[in-house]
Amino acid sequence: MNSMTKLGLAATLIALPQLGLAQEADTTPTNADIGFIFTTFMFLVSGFLVFFMAAGFAMLEAGLVRGKNVAMQLTKNMALFSLASIFYYILGYNLMYPGDGWSMQGILGAFSITSLEPVGLAGAEPDLTYASVGSDFFFQLMFCAATASIVSGAVAERIKLWPFLMFTIVLTAVIYPVQASWKWGGGFLDEMGFLDFAGSTVVHSVGGWAALTGAIILGPRIGKYAKDGRVIPIPGSNLALATLGTFILWLGWFGFNGGSQLYMDTAGNVADISRIFSNTNTAAAAGAVVALILTQMLYKKPDLTMILNGALAGLVSITAEPLTPSLIQATLIGGVGGAIVVFAVPMLDKFKIDDVVGAIPVHLFAGIWGTLAVPLTNSDANFGTQIISILIVGAFVVVASTIVWLLLKGIFGLRVSEEDEINGLDMAELGMEAYPEFSKG
Amino acid sequence: MNSMTKLGLAATLIALPQLGLAQEADTTPTNADIGFIFTTFMFLVSGFLVFFMAAGFAMLEAGLVRGKNVAMQLTKNMALFSLASIFYYILGYNLMYPGDGWSMQGILGAFSITSLEPVGLAGAEPDLTYASVGSDFFFQLMFCAATASIVSGAVAERIKLWPFLMFTIVLTAVIYPVQASWKWGGGFLDEMGFLDFAGSTVVHSVGGWAALTGAIILGPRIGKYAKDGRVIPIPGSNLALATLGTFILWLGWFGFNGGSQLYMDTAGNVADISRIFSNTNTAAAAGAVVALILTQMLYKKPDLTMILNGALAGLVSITAEPLTPSLIQATLIGGVGGAIVVFAVPMLDKFKIDDVVGAIPVHLFAGIWGTLAVPLTNSDANFGTQIISILIVGAFVVVASTIVWLLLKGIFGLRVSEEDEINGLDMAELGMEAYPEFSKG
Amino acid sequence: MNSMTKLGLAATLIALPQLGLAQEADTTPTNADIGFIFTTFMFLVSGFLVFFMAAGFAMLEAGLVRGKNVAMQLTKNMALFSLASIFYYILGYNLMYPGDGWSMQGILGAFSITSLEPVGLAGAEPDLTYASVGSDFFFQLMFCAATASIVSGAVAERIKLWPFLMFTIVLTAVIYPVQASWKWGGGFLDEMGFLDFAGSTVVHSVGGWAALTGAIILGPRIGKYAKDGRVIPIPGSNLALATLGTFILWLGWFGFNGGSQLYMDTAGNVADISRIFSNTNTAAAAGAVVALILTQMLYKKPDLTMILNGALAGLVSITAEPLTPSLIQATLIGGVGGAIVVFAVPMLDKFKIDDVVGAIPVHLFAGIWGTLAVPLTNSDANFGTQIISILIVGAFVVVASTIVWLLLKGIFGLRVSEEDEINGLDMAELGMEAYPEFSKG
Repeated sequence: MNSMTKLGLAATLIALPQLGLAQEADTTPTNADIGFIFTTFMFLVSGFLVFFMAAGFAMLEAGLVRGKNVAMQLTKNMALFSLASIFYYILGYNLMYPGDGWSMQGILGAFSITSLEPVGLAGAEPDLTYASVGSDFFFQLMFCAATASIVSGAVAERIKLWPFLMFTIVLTAVIYPVQASWKWGGGFLDEMGFLDFAGSTVVHSVGGWAALTGAIILGPRIGKYAKDGRVIPIPGSNLALATLGTFILWLGWFGFNGGSQLYMDTAGNVADISRIFSNTNTAAAAGAVVALILTQMLYKKPDLTMILNGALAGLVSITAEPLTPSLIQATLIGGVGGAIVVFAVPMLDKFKIDDVVGAIPVHLFAGIWGTLAVPLTNSDANFGTQIISILIVGAFVVVASTIVWLLLKGIFGLRVSEEDEINGLDMAELGMEAYPEFSKG
Repeated sequence: MNSMTKLGLAATLIALPQLGLAQEADTTPTNADIGFIFTTFMFLVSGFLVFFMAAGFAMLEAGLVRGKNVAMQLTKNMALFSLASIFYYILGYNLMYPGDGWSMQGILGAFSITSLEPVGLAGAEPDLTYASVGSDFFFQLMFCAATASIVSGAVAERIKLWPFLMFTIVLTAVIYPVQASWKWGGGFLDEMGFLDFAGSTVVHSVGGWAALTGAIILGPRIGKYAKDGRVIPIPGSNLALATLGTFILWLGWFGFNGGSQLYMDTAGNVADISRIFSNTNTAAAAGAVVALILTQMLYKKPDLTMILNGALAGLVSITAEPLTPSLIQATLIGGVGGAIVVFAVPMLDKFKIDDVVGAIPVHLFAGIWGTLAVPLTNSDANFGTQIISILIVGAFVVVASTIVWLLLKGIFGLRVSEEDEINGLDMAELGMEAYPEFSKG
Repeated sequence: MNSMTKLGLAATLIALPQLGLAQEADTTPTNADIGFIFTTFMFLVSGFLVFFMAAGFAMLEAGLVRGKNVAMQLTKNMALFSLASIFYYILGYNLMYPGDGWSMQGILGAFSITSLEPVGLAGAEPDLTYASVGSDFFFQLMFCAATASIVSGAVAERIKLWPFLMFTIVLTAVIYPVQASWKWGGGFLDEMGFLDFAGSTVVHSVGGWAALTGAIILGPRIGKYAKDGRVIPIPGSNLALATLGTFILWLGWFGFNGGSQLYMDTAGNVADISRIFSNTNTAAAAGAVVALILTQMLYKKPDLTMILNGALAGLVSITAEPLTPSLIQATLIGGVGGAIVVFAVPMLDKFKIDDVVGAIPVHLFAGIWGTLAVPLTNSDANFGTQIISILIVGAFVVVASTIVWLLLKGIFGLRVSEEDEINGLDMAELGMEAYPEFSKG
């Protein structure tokens, strides 16, 4: 606000010219501007919704860990988002969208720092058929950060802070952008005809693979698997927070999937975004309902954390193709996602893979399902290409993540000491508690 | 995101054609498109705000029940929203907006599943003077779900999960849509001249009536009313959550009332939405301030839960007519809502109607007040029609709800056992606690 | 919603005329309308984001006070926002934007109640080059309320409710609007060439100065400073809430800074808003990362509350000029903000100024830094004018606040009794607890 804004006194507006940089006198937009404004604003609104998912992940994960690890989980989430915000502009964004600047055609993007358009687009002569660089950067950053948020839940309650954050840097600066360029940067997977509208594979399975390798390399929490093979449930400390986190993630997903339409400059595009909102909501609802019903049937009691993860799995499932399904198809796609969670959580436990918040079933397994489901409603996709792409992305992320995890393990160690783990990371690594007055210890 | 989005390297945009379904090459919208885009996007933004009210209700209610019932209250809120999302498209939406397809002219709408426009509006030749079906469905769904959320708070801490969810299904698939069609679907109340801009009656009183019948049929919680007639206060377990929930509801209400303008395609319409935002905020503030002052005067100490409910009552009060009042009139309308809460809560206790969160004063009584206040600022309304409409809607919902509650009571039983209620629904019905490490039990 | 909205049955829309006041039949906007719609809607969206900051402040502060004062902190936040909403329209808005109606040219604005445009702009002949009065009022109100929210955290855990609320009324009705008029109302600071894009000085330092005078006049909490000079840490009761509050504030800041562009009617303006979003996010991230690294280096353990305040300080720092910096410059500006917090918190303790939540370092010190940093990236600013303006605003707010605090102290007393402070404000002043089942007492 560089100057007085307007006359509050009367209902008749007296417009006062704004001093400073921002504003031209002529305020009637041209039709060429209008599409640009619509799409750019759509990215900003979608972007702030996806931003808020960082809070959703933080609350979900803080609610599902034990009280003695809550402050650390919050610290990790705040720090990972902040690091992603910095390393994505330093390296990630241009690696992901190299345009004509591929370092290796279709496989490795460009190495350079992101620069936004000049203030007021002065001298930029922008092509107005898309959106501003700043809005696209803002929107895309949030996808990158979401990928890192997925990892933090799976490896919670035992990983050291700094090695985790170093992994986050590599993930957000390099691993995520490189594989994302293959599809969304116009790389070789895109040329092959791989379809992944908003990232069941490119975002969610990538976070899921990184989480899976991390959880395996770290090993399970002390006390999770008894010597006789029994699985000891470790309940989360605050299901109200976990539910809040789920609602926030659900909210953010409207921006995640809706914004991935990439254009809001025609009636057809905004109608498509509307389809996407409706389908996204329906799939989440179906995932929750299926988890509710299945846990009632299997365990005689509904399981709230399964319902929350069921909703999230429904969301992940519809993310690869939120546009083409009908509402009934969205219900089925999301519902299968909910079922996957209910069956996959005990399966992981059989393999003694300790995923604290259920991130692997939700993001990896439902992400694969969602990607495979694209051809069911979109005739431009085919199963073969979808499967090959899932495997290529998975192989890359597993190999790259494993190397980084093992390097960090070798150099710094990944896991806190047994004593620190039992006492809780909060006192051991932070010296503070999330709930100093409430917690039993 | 079906392809590369844009060149991150340079500030000069190089637009790359998007592959796939979504996008046409020509991205300069026509003026005919623009109004459609504005209104549709406005519905999507308003809709996600109203969606978030589901989280607001969940947090408000989770904060106002005791610790032993929090996980169940969260489960109910997550499940009711999910069920509403499914049953509203299967049945509710077309029952509510039958267009020319009334099953019974002006009284019973159409029975069919909602279908959205084709992708990209291909072959749809849409009338561009309104908004996309998907955006309207998304927006309207959230109103239906809000109605169900109102009920869950009043009947908390004693109702069985599954009968409650069955009631939710009937409410969202049939009861809410049928009466809503009478006004918003162009039915007989609309033809009579009934005015209810965003639903003081159509949404809030309907939720309130359903809550009232439920609370009466269930009876009060064990220990709420002593044998000597004294009322035993049962404090909520987490007022921080309850406050967060109230703020989220307040936020969502901007979408609730603002979106109900239904058009954002002209300067006049967007200016009206601005009036609505300002009046909505003012009424909420006035409700909170009046509750603050009255509880100080009556009880010598302000009461936070009354202040929260005062703000919500202010919001409900302005919902029937958020457009025509001046800011001062909005202050008065909302302030009366706050006063209603302060006086109605003890009144309900006199009748031994145990409304756990104060949903009946907030949504039913303030909803009636808001509906009656319309003629004070809008000369198109008249008291007679408003009163008759309130009574017709009330009679319908009370009769329909009572039948459903009693059927469910006869078939499944509505109320948990005395032992389960004393131990808490969380352990009894879910086998998990919301705060396993904190709660005294 | 005054009538039926649309035909849900078919994908082909059949638009039905809306009855009532709101809607004209012709729904194709003119190009003159379009800029007005874009900017007005941008204000509404930005405004609801800044509104949500009220929840962010409430959660941050509720999380950082002890359990025995949480309900009171929630009450204060709910009440201060509500009072600001009322007194800003009664007095503040026209004091701040007097237009031609200055009571004292460039120093004291106009005294009158805010009136919005007529419904549907009927007969208003508005100048369509800006935005609706209602949207501007809504947006500006939120800045005023944010200023008051800043104060409540610093004076927490010992101030009486009613004197605090009286201070809030004077602050939001008079102190904030008068000084804001000097810059944003086109007063003498604006004419001098002072630049403060979104309010590092006008909002944040003003809240900070008022907080500083309040904290000094009140004195520290009992037990905060031992007789031997040691500082006794008083940990917050709920760091999950504090983290949630920080994320909500971060989210709201996109509206705070982005909306302060004031126009979204051209490609240049929306591209600028995109720059602002990206820079705002980057500065917050940098503040958090710097606080993370510095607390690790200084104390060997990262400090979550410092990280949260570091993010907020990064946000305050970029607020005076979020448009002109590059992403790297935004990183540096925000990072310095994070460092300021880490060094200023112990410094305040040296002076025995007890700022419960760190509001003074975050909002005052980082606000000054941000204002001084404007000339580093914006050649229209100069250090001399920035410094003079900071001093003038600071002197005014310190003097005015001190007078009001001392008057309130003399008449009512500012501070609760020692016994009440030790027992907690919740039981003493409200008679209720935020967490009756968890808290140790």
